[in-house]
Amino acid sequence: QQINAAEPVDLSGYERVTQTLVRPPFAPKHDQVAQGAPKIVEIEMVVDERLMVVDEDTGASIGAMTYNGSVPGPLIIVHQDDYVELTLKSLSRNALEHNIDFHASTGALGGGALTHIYPGEETVLRFKATKPGCFTYHCAPGGAMIPYHVCHGMNGAIMVLPRDGLKDKDGNALTYDEIAYIGEQDYYLPRNEDGTFKTYSSDGDDYAESLEAMRTLTPSHVVFNGAVGALTGANALRSAVGKTVLMIHNQANRDSRPHLIGGHGNVVWESGSFSDAPMTGMETWFVRGGSAMAAMYTFEQPGVYAYVNHNVIEAAILGATAHFVVDGDWNNALMEQVVAPRSTEA
Amino acid sequence: QQINAAEPVDLSGYERVTQTLVRPPFAPKHDQVAQGAPKIVEIEMVVDERLMVVDEDTGASIGAMTYNGSVPGPLIIVHQDDYVELTLKSLSRNALEHNIDFHASTGALGGGALTHIYPGEETVLRFKATKPGCFTYHCAPGGAMIPYHVCHGMNGAIMVLPRDGLKDKDGNALTYDEIAYIGEQDYYLPRNEDGTFKTYSSDGDDYAESLEAMRTLTPSHVVFNGAVGALTGANALRSAVGKTVLMIHNQANRDSRPHLIGGHGNVVWESGSFSDAPMTGMETWFVRGGSAMAAMYTFEQPGVYAYVNHNVIEAAILGATAHFVVDGDWNNALMEQVVAPRSTEA
Amino acid sequence: QQINAAEPVDLSGYERVTQTLVRPPFAPKHDQVAQGAPKIVEIEMVVDERLMVVDEDTGASIGAMTYNGSVPGPLIIVHQDDYVELTLKSLSRNALEHNIDFHASTGALGGGALTHIYPGEETVLRFKATKPGCFTYHCAPGGAMIPYHVCHGMNGAIMVLPRDGLKDKDGNALTYDEIAYIGEQDYYLPRNEDGTFKTYSSDGDDYAESLEAMRTLTPSHVVFNGAVGALTGANALRSAVGKTVLMIHNQANRDSRPHLIGGHGNVVWESGSFSDAPMTGMETWFVRGGSAMAAMYTFEQPGVYAYVNHNVIEAAILGATAHFVVDGDWNNALMEQVVAPRSTEA
Ligand SMILES: [Cu+2]
Ligand SMILES: [Cu+2]
Ligand SMILES: [Cu+2]
Ligand SMILES: [Cu+2]
Ligand SMILES: [Cu+2]
Ligand SMILES: [Cu+2]
Ligand SMILES: [Mg+2]
Ligand SMILES: [Mg+2]
Ligand SMILES: [Mg+2]
Ligand SMILES: [Mg+2]
Ligand SMILES: [Mg+2]
Ligand SMILES: [Mg+2]
Ligand SMILES: [Mg+2]
Ligand SMILES: [Mg+2]
Ligand SMILES: [Mg+2]
Repeated sequence: QQINAAEPVDLSGYERVTQTLVRPPFAPKHDQVAQGAPKIVEIEMVVDERLMVVDEDTGASIGAMTYNGSVPGPLIIVHQDDYVELTLKSLSRNALEHNIDFHASTGALGGGALTHIYPGEETVLRFKATKPGCFTYHCAPGGAMIPYHVCHGMNGAIMVLPRDGLKDKDGNALTYDEIAYIGEQDYYLPRNEDGTFKTYSSDGDDYAESLEAMRTLTPSHVVFNGAVGALTGANALRSAVGKTVLMIHNQANRDSRPHLIGGHGNVVWESGSFSDAPMTGMETWFVRGGSAMAAMYTFEQPGVYAYVNHNVIEAAILGATAHFVVDGDWNNALMEQVVAPRSTEA
Repeated sequence: QQINAAEPVDLSGYERVTQTLVRPPFAPKHDQVAQGAPKIVEIEMVVDERLMVVDEDTGASIGAMTYNGSVPGPLIIVHQDDYVELTLKSLSRNALEHNIDFHASTGALGGGALTHIYPGEETVLRFKATKPGCFTYHCAPGGAMIPYHVCHGMNGAIMVLPRDGLKDKDGNALTYDEIAYIGEQDYYLPRNEDGTFKTYSSDGDDYAESLEAMRTLTPSHVVFNGAVGALTGANALRSAVGKTVLMIHNQANRDSRPHLIGGHGNVVWESGSFSDAPMTGMETWFVRGGSAMAAMYTFEQPGVYAYVNHNVIEAAILGATAHFVVDGDWNNALMEQVVAPRSTEA
Repeated sequence: QQINAAEPVDLSGYERVTQTLVRPPFAPKHDQVAQGAPKIVEIEMVVDERLMVVDEDTGASIGAMTYNGSVPGPLIIVHQDDYVELTLKSLSRNALEHNIDFHASTGALGGGALTHIYPGEETVLRFKATKPGCFTYHCAPGGAMIPYHVCHGMNGAIMVLPRDGLKDKDGNALTYDEIAYIGEQDYYLPRNEDGTFKTYSSDGDDYAESLEAMRTLTPSHVVFNGAVGALTGANALRSAVGKTVLMIHNQANRDSRPHLIGGHGNVVWESGSFSDAPMTGMETWFVRGGSAMAAMYTFEQPGVYAYVNHNVIEAAILGATAHFVVDGDWNNALMEQVVAPRSTEA
């Protein structure tokens, strides 16, 4: 086969560093501007099939397929021309075959062709991050198993920063104070005849019925970070007036249209590519299904901001709502309640 | 609470003007280039719950929730850095709580947190229009009431013009002769078992069944300006060869893809932001669900132009078609019927 | 009528050339940079209603309506300011009225108003291709017949090249080695009560049931070039490392989001317009329903690349998958399988 006949590559001059991946919505420790020459960034991900509650109110649950136990999988951050060297392991208690396809990579179905592992196996894939941007990764075992795994949560994002950091459309440096990494997940949970959600005893048991549900193209749930309310209440994102947040939105399957209620997308890389000038001043931006992207905002007012998929049915009924709780002082020059609600009757 | 502790803002130097809002598809009187310094633009909107016929052919109707009695709500036009000062009233005969969330504003859920009013109440909200563009506004009372109100017609648009007017991608001034303000509305009307549409006696009675219908994410109707045929026949938009129309398209919930049959988007602010260079020469443009946008065209031929959501199922079966009737002289240099239809049989 | 009163146009100075249209996914012979002055490009298309198998596995079939016997119709290529002069004929064995609406043209509903023909008829339409880009054409007989014909395959694309060829965002010339012309088709096949697909004896018999199926906005099939697997296996597209392919994607009705698994969109005219600078470095791009667009990629690795609609349900279950089989040498500097899958158990 062509791949096995290839010339070896000499990477002896590359420094190796380890990136410790963390749980969403958090980002791994990283430099916004690259320090020194391109590196080999070693990461590890463990495939973990686990039951997850999707909505506590209804008890809806799914035999989730995850990278590192979370939906979405962890955020990876490197700089352009770095190598990503992933050790991918599958727990021996898992039931299914998995792999990984990086949209950021080149060749072999994004690495999918080189990383098929069974429970109790591991593999190591290395690829060069040649294109700057935010990119989806996901499991793609082949055929209908692709949507089955993707729609069971098996996807995440990598951000490949330009070596000299992010830039506005005039080429000026842009920096952020914090990252909010939001994975939007569409689930297609099969229902009983009475409309309640079915439960299954082990991974794979819901295969045929999941496929039937997926054929409707109508998700039962559209959630952020794996479950209804995963980023609200006690789990809300926190920020402060004057802080700049980079919102990284991953949607591995289905289009979305994020909106920050009460805020804006000041600077938006809508397609996720950092090789094009960002858009500015957006009310609502568009996530092409099967992509990751980034939007930047600096908070100007305190209070609660809802970050939603602005199909408001999907936001308010199917689950796609997160909250930012922002500290600081209110600015009446931007907005003022001139007259509080009062009766108009004499 | 933070907002009540805020410093007062001194706007004594600002001139106050009143903008009289008009019924869609028309635009309020306005300057394309701002005259003088930023102003406080006073507007009034009245929340009006009213039964509306959605499709005369089938008799389908909805207990619409409206701003000023129309779907969409009226178009507001200001310039960047103007203040919008809205008096929002709710008729005492209404049944439900309402508010307003302006995507053009900053903070307090777009004003939604400051404007909750019950029937027979009023409130006054002021916000600074800091970002140029077309922006959606809509009712957002919270939770599932958000899609319930938005999908019952409670949404509209504001255009925030750059102070020096619209520009092409090279910075040259662009002007328009007329505005066509088109609000696309997706309705989810519950059906009887025989497929006919249910009727309800008062607002709110259709809540549970509307939510079930919305969960399908499949609208029963997708219409322009509130009803099937609201912008065709006697209600068609009118223009003339050589005239430039600015088409403002609002869709508060669901993606759309407008196309002008027989014409183009010569200049298109697809995301609605005027802080980015517009796109040009488009056949079909994309409206992110939960946004307003603008497209400009100068008519070159007379005749009827259909303006459609180019999911042609939505245009021709669900209702999303408007007509422009354009006067003028035909130009054979652009298109000619060289041979009229004729038999090929000898 | 206005059109009949129009001044004749003198095109006696124009050279006439004939373009022989070919079967998708192939492109007609053409120059990337125009030779000489604008021309009149004569083409012929024959409307052909024919039974087509949509999925061999299930036997699902449709009474397809086609231009020249294929879904999509043939790709037309001209340069900006050329005239397209189409002779459109309808086979006498056809059953229905048809016409053609060119998004690339100006006036008369894109020519739709001037080209209504019945079986056994012909007509000739000439239009000037004033705007550079990729544009959809489709049948649009009026009313619900529009989605009925479009969703039975009656659509295709024209590419109007800039006279001096394609350019990158800095104005440098871009050339391609080959074109892959991909028409994405959503079908709405009615089902029997047992879930199998209905068969019909003649064109038009499925009208009422097709309309009911279309109202769901949920296609039974989403395919490339007319049928499941039309561009995989023996019919896969072929290329080689170092070759640059221009992928032209047409979707006349429904949004799509193409992704080349293992590759990228190096240069993407996402809206199809060549009058705007292309986007670069994209993982997944967006096709507005009712448009044609173009993406360019230079292969860097050998192997199989799947080109998919990255709603992976649509790709893997409904049919929207094509394959490129690419020859050449593997480059370990871009990707390497460092450790092949192996057991982690001692
Ligand atoms: Cu998997
Ligand atoms: Cu993918
Ligand atoms: Cu309301
Ligand atoms: Cu909103
Ligand atoms: Cu036809
Ligand atoms: Cu069209
Ligand atoms: Mg090797
Ligand atoms: Mg809940
Ligand atoms: Mg095991
Ligand atoms: Mg991306
Ligand atoms: Mg005050
Ligand atoms: Mg009607
Ligand atoms: Mg907008
Ligand atoms: Mg098959
Ligand atoms: Mg196009």
